[in-house]
Amino acid sequence: MQAHSLKAEQRIIGQEPYYEPVADEIEVFEAAYDNRLPVMLKGPTGCGKTRFMEHMAWRLKRPLITVSCHDDLTAADLVGRFLVKNGETVWTDGPLARAVRFGAICYLDEVVEARKDTTVVIHPLADDRRELPMEKLGELLEAPPEFNLTISFNPGYQSVLKDLKQSTRQRFVALEFSYPDPELEARIIERESGVDGEVAGRLVRFAEMTRNLKGAGLDEGASTRLLVQAAKLIHHGIPPAAACRAGVAQALTDDPDMLAAVNELSTSLF
Amino acid sequence: MQAHSLKAEQRIIGQEPYYEPVADEIEVFEAAYDNRLPVMLKGPTGCGKTRFMEHMAWRLKRPLITVSCHDDLTAADLVGRFLVKNGETVWTDGPLARAVRFGAICYLDEVVEARKDTTVVIHPLADDRRELPMEKLGELLEAPPEFNLTISFNPGYQSVLKDLKQSTRQRFVALEFSYPDPELEARIIERESGVDGEVAGRLVRFAEMTRNLKGAGLDEGASTRLLVQAAKLIHHGIPPAAACRAGVAQALTDDPDMLAAVNELSTSLF
Amino acid sequence: MQAHSLKAEQRIIGQEPYYEPVADEIEVFEAAYDNRLPVMLKGPTGCGKTRFMEHMAWRLKRPLITVSCHDDLTAADLVGRFLVKNGETVWTDGPLARAVRFGAICYLDEVVEARKDTTVVIHPLADDRRELPMEKLGELLEAPPEFNLTISFNPGYQSVLKDLKQSTRQRFVALEFSYPDPELEARIIERESGVDGEVAGRLVRFAEMTRNLKGAGLDEGASTRLLVQAAKLIHHGIPPAAACRAGVAQALTDDPDMLAAVNELSTSLF
Amino acid sequence: MQAHSLKAEQRIIGQEPYYEPVADEIEVFEAAYDNRLPVMLKGPTGCGKTRFMEHMAWRLKRPLITVSCHDDLTAADLVGRFLVKNGETVWTDGPLARAVRFGAICYLDEVVEARKDTTVVIHPLADDRRELPMEKLGELLEAPPEFNLTISFNPGYQSVLKDLKQSTRQRFVALEFSYPDPELEARIIERESGVDGEVAGRLVRFAEMTRNLKGAGLDEGASTRLLVQAAKLIHHGIPPAAACRAGVAQALTDDPDMLAAVNELSTSLF
Amino acid sequence: MQAHSLKAEQRIIGQEPYYEPVADEIEVFEAAYDNRLPVMLKGPTGCGKTRFMEHMAWRLKRPLITVSCHDDLTAADLVGRFLVKNGETVWTDGPLARAVRFGAICYLDEVVEARKDTTVVIHPLADDRRELPMEKLGELLEAPPEFNLTISFNPGYQSVLKDLKQSTRQRFVALEFSYPDPELEARIIERESGVDGEVAGRLVRFAEMTRNLKGAGLDEGASTRLLVQAAKLIHHGIPPAAACRAGVAQALTDDPDMLAAVNELSTSLF
Amino acid sequence: MQAHSLKAEQRIIGQEPYYEPVADEIEVFEAAYDNRLPVMLKGPTGCGKTRFMEHMAWRLKRPLITVSCHDDLTAADLVGRFLVKNGETVWTDGPLARAVRFGAICYLDEVVEARKDTTVVIHPLADDRRELPMEKLGELLEAPPEFNLTISFNPGYQSVLKDLKQSTRQRFVALEFSYPDPELEARIIERESGVDGEVAGRLVRFAEMTRNLKGAGLDEGASTRLLVQAAKLIHHGIPPAAACRAGVAQALTDDPDMLAAVNELSTSLF
Repeated sequence: MQAHSLKAEQRIIGQEPYYEPVADEIEVFEAAYDNRLPVMLKGPTGCGKTRFMEHMAWRLKRPLITVSCHDDLTAADLVGRFLVKNGETVWTDGPLARAVRFGAICYLDEVVEARKDTTVVIHPLADDRRELPMEKLGELLEAPPEFNLTISFNPGYQSVLKDLKQSTRQRFVALEFSYPDPELEARIIERESGVDGEVAGRLVRFAEMTRNLKGAGLDEGASTRLLVQAAKLIHHGIPPAAACRAGVAQALTDDPDMLAAVNELSTSLF
Repeated sequence: MQAHSLKAEQRIIGQEPYYEPVADEIEVFEAAYDNRLPVMLKGPTGCGKTRFMEHMAWRLKRPLITVSCHDDLTAADLVGRFLVKNGETVWTDGPLARAVRFGAICYLDEVVEARKDTTVVIHPLADDRRELPMEKLGELLEAPPEFNLTISFNPGYQSVLKDLKQSTRQRFVALEFSYPDPELEARIIERESGVDGEVAGRLVRFAEMTRNLKGAGLDEGASTRLLVQAAKLIHHGIPPAAACRAGVAQALTDDPDMLAAVNELSTSLF
Repeated sequence: MQAHSLKAEQRIIGQEPYYEPVADEIEVFEAAYDNRLPVMLKGPTGCGKTRFMEHMAWRLKRPLITVSCHDDLTAADLVGRFLVKNGETVWTDGPLARAVRFGAICYLDEVVEARKDTTVVIHPLADDRRELPMEKLGELLEAPPEFNLTISFNPGYQSVLKDLKQSTRQRFVALEFSYPDPELEARIIERESGVDGEVAGRLVRFAEMTRNLKGAGLDEGASTRLLVQAAKLIHHGIPPAAACRAGVAQALTDDPDMLAAVNELSTSLF
Repeated sequence: MQAHSLKAEQRIIGQEPYYEPVADEIEVFEAAYDNRLPVMLKGPTGCGKTRFMEHMAWRLKRPLITVSCHDDLTAADLVGRFLVKNGETVWTDGPLARAVRFGAICYLDEVVEARKDTTVVIHPLADDRRELPMEKLGELLEAPPEFNLTISFNPGYQSVLKDLKQSTRQRFVALEFSYPDPELEARIIERESGVDGEVAGRLVRFAEMTRNLKGAGLDEGASTRLLVQAAKLIHHGIPPAAACRAGVAQALTDDPDMLAAVNELSTSLF
Repeated sequence: MQAHSLKAEQRIIGQEPYYEPVADEIEVFEAAYDNRLPVMLKGPTGCGKTRFMEHMAWRLKRPLITVSCHDDLTAADLVGRFLVKNGETVWTDGPLARAVRFGAICYLDEVVEARKDTTVVIHPLADDRRELPMEKLGELLEAPPEFNLTISFNPGYQSVLKDLKQSTRQRFVALEFSYPDPELEARIIERESGVDGEVAGRLVRFAEMTRNLKGAGLDEGASTRLLVQAAKLIHHGIPPAAACRAGVAQALTDDPDMLAAVNELSTSLF
Repeated sequence: MQAHSLKAEQRIIGQEPYYEPVADEIEVFEAAYDNRLPVMLKGPTGCGKTRFMEHMAWRLKRPLITVSCHDDLTAADLVGRFLVKNGETVWTDGPLARAVRFGAICYLDEVVEARKDTTVVIHPLADDRRELPMEKLGELLEAPPEFNLTISFNPGYQSVLKDLKQSTRQRFVALEFSYPDPELEARIIERESGVDGEVAGRLVRFAEMTRNLKGAGLDEGASTRLLVQAAKLIHHGIPPAAACRAGVAQALTDDPDMLAAVNELSTSLF
């Protein structure tokens, strides 16, 4: 039993990923793609940004190369570096250079977490030059028309230190994401977990109650992703209240009072 | 007399590790495991989280790969790196990649201590993609169904700087751990150290007194682990008061007044 | 479909880049160039500094080597380093050394973002010595007359920590850039996106409204670059209000109130 | 005249190191050792912790491997790393791995000074797993029964930043050390320096005076080690007052007023 | 068209660099040089310190090796390091070691910007030992009589963090530099740019006005170097007011009000 | 004209360095040396600590290995490291290991400037173990009786951050240094510079005036070293007032008012 591994640029999505559009996001993304403009996704965790990207990659028939950004991610991690292999020094493309080279869609998830040099290295790619300077090679890589750069971040968590500079922001077409409306969200839960509409509906009502607590004790309300996880536990036979405790409440907060309050909400519903 | 060493993925636990369940933690963990959902354990030091993981690994018959996190732990430490060996450059999996590759259970202990890049590298593993991007290889590793990711932390010690982001938390099914109830805790002490029920019971009463001092001079009360250690010293012939001083009080605090108070508690019991 | 790559010093601009001068910037740049004086461009993001440099490089028939500066950019990144290639250690020029060696124009974009050592390494190049010390080689590189050094920064974003030292500033001839006047800006939008003058004019009026909000809720108003992007979306068939929302408003700010206000401005115009 | 060097694991102490027990520390250490429990020594500098460890290593007939911790000490320094030797890449155990491998006593002196990753790397060694994960090798090293881990620190100098975490502390049996009582301390001084009981007694009285000034101008009083050093100078022919000035007072403080006060104390005694 | 490069120690200045002495600086420098004492130059940017060093190097017929210091400059950058070249590890002198070895004049420009280790590495060179410890080689390099060490800094910009320690300062003979007196400054401008005495005199009056604004809105007044640059633009045909704006005012400040004020000063003169 | 270089351990001082004792420092140092105790020198810059060490090394006929400490100095810099030379990996002793190996006197100048790991690495060398752990080699180096460790620092400049820990201080015999008394200082100046007693005496009076300004505008008064430098300039023909300005006043301070005051003091004397 060994895991399967594949080259990043071979990750072409063959089957349509399930995605329910909430507004004109598919049209705007396609217009940006056709005009070779980079895109910026904004929205809270677990509301479907990653799934949207998989859907668009499928729709546009391009490989999708995703990079989860963090505060040790350097420009070299994105662009590439020299590695010594068997006595030969070979250049190894990073995921961004790989995406440019193969005309893939490059998705930089939570880009505000990255070090500042990574946001600067995308500047020449994100204006009409559409070129990636590979300074260690002394080369410029010109992006083919199929290449697209998309970044995402959660505006609710941006701090002053981790804000995107205007010189970065003002290069992107921006799409805002939010939680789906109740009916749509219940349909997603049913489809992803196998629970029935009744349970799905109660989970959505539970989520809405937690979202109302955002800023009043909770940093964030329950995401669609969390609801799907709790629904899976229920579908497996865990009692709904226990599933909501383990699958939602404990994931949301460590505060004993908030935990009690959130658990009370779920037991009132199930 | 040379120590025995073994490959991490060979660490399959052959004998049932002694574990006393306190609630529905075994059922919820199994439901999460079957649904390929990652798990988060919360609770104070020394209350049995590590033993629980050894028990579940035995129960599920999977190798257990544990990583103690610290604030110099980087994503490369988890994922792997290129090493030059005898003139050949070879890729060496880190413990997380090794766990994914062999379908093991990967347990990241005290995950909030790790650098931020490590919490981000687990994101694609901890949602329905279940894939580990190995950027330096330019490869994606797809986790087999047997793979499970579990993380732990102590909510009592989280600082603002070391909080888990919501985008991390909202990917996990969460289980809260606490000290066992008195009768159960005494049974554990007897079984682990060899002392009789009388001594074990007094040690539990001593522990409860120190737990009541949490926040009132002590950072934390005595854990079950400490009680087992003191019981072992007693069983070896050290007088109980001296065993409590060396095995519990001095381990809990350096403050002279608190030390005197805690030692008085133990001499009142023995 | 593989991307095209070329050596940095081969990037000679063959076709006249479209550029509309706003004052005497072309004459002053040429005078500085002929007197072998370095130049400093100041101005907000997206107002045409990069395009101006491409235009001047075309006009002076020199290769243009651009470096986007960031706070991990070191002197070695600019000057060069030793790399081991196939068992041989070879010196590899950085982009600055490459530009000096080939008599190119070196453009350091957002230079205040760079580490302090990079601003010091340009000192001997930016006075009448015109030499680049390559300390790791133990060599001095004397710039040919064709070499020019230009730096840029946005004075609106300079912080105390990232200010240019007087010993750096007082080596440069300085040119200030701003947004073009309305008529010129509309002409640029028409020409770059394909929309008609009517739409272009409304976009300019919209931009001016956002520029008046600078410091009153917005960090910066909409740049010419953003207007061109929104115009491209419109030209592609996205309704103007939606194009302004995705192409301008969401790029400018994350604040819900400001977003509402900016979107209201655009809907009042379209 | 070249210095003698020997492998760390060969450092077995052949001759009984002179050590005067002050309480039950030898019995408790032996009980912990026999139960395979790790030990924590607490106490001020120069009061005999290092000598105690040499004595116990001699008594238990195990090699003693001591590591002086500091704030650049990393986990890799303790566990080991790959080194390239003559074209071959070989793994080199750090002192902790070496101690585990050979069943030695590993003594981490002033452990609170070390980086946090070092305190975490000892966690699995310091509970009933008794195993050292060598992540770069992908191996687990299981400690033989002869292995013991002892750490030390000075509680008087712990800062908030350098406190041991409860999850570390609650794994150790703890022993507190202090200065010997006067008669015993005088006997130690006589034996170590060669001075007579009269001089030794006066030095102890001098030390007690400085210890009373702790917190009232002095950070710490004179340790037994300092007294032995001053006694050696006296035995060599330096007048007692001068020996106290150079061997004690100037070592304790740089403050001119405190120096005058401490010197007055010594001249009143000699 | 390839740039010319030469070895640092070959940089002997063949032609007398134009330099106008302002006091006894040439005599004192020669006395220090003959007595093998190091020299410290103090003064604002652009007032002639670099030119003075070139003049003295010419006068003393020694190569001049200049290092622009910055806060990433390490001792190894100055002293040297091992480099692997074609499989052989060879020691490569840094500029300071190179200067000691060849009896050159080593000029450390803006030394307060360097890291602290660089100021310490010059200590044994800057007292009567006159030796450079090359610790990585395990060697001491004894300076020949022809070697001289000169450092410079701008006292107006020293911060508490970047002050020279007394143990560094008290090793140097110190010379203070300032702007030349008006007549001399005008003569310098004429000679360097080709403008006539009338224009040069007005530029000096303009500079004096800006120098009076130092501390009252400007960090620093216009240096002689800036005046020469503006004069060159004028000589090339740029109108004087425009040349003062681009060559002086914009280089001095970004503040709109100060810019207006400074531009008004220049238009009042031309 | 190439500089002379020699191995550090070959630096045996053949000719008696001129040194005038001010108290019992020679006797105490010899007593410490004979008892194998480490020594700590305290005192301001330029008062003769370095010369004293050269004198003692000559007197004891041992090589003197001096390390100027700075805040990037690591334990590896002192102990040694592996270097790859011609394909072979060879261990290279640092200056401390070299001194231990050859029984030299190791003098760590301004030890408080060093990183904390360096002060810890000397602990086992500075107590009765007298051994240097070379962890990267897995070896212990036992110091021969001829080895001596001496450290120095300036108590006037110690900050809280850079204080020596008590666990370090309480291992050393300590000697305090200060400026020589006037007659002795004048004799030193005459002998070192060649000026007559009259000039030397005035320089000493000048120095005393500046020393009285310590804490009242000056960080430190003029050291004996500075006086010798000024005397050399005078002996070379520079007028006394100019020599005091360049050789003393400008070296002491950058403050214009203090400079004027100090210059007035010197002109009143000459």
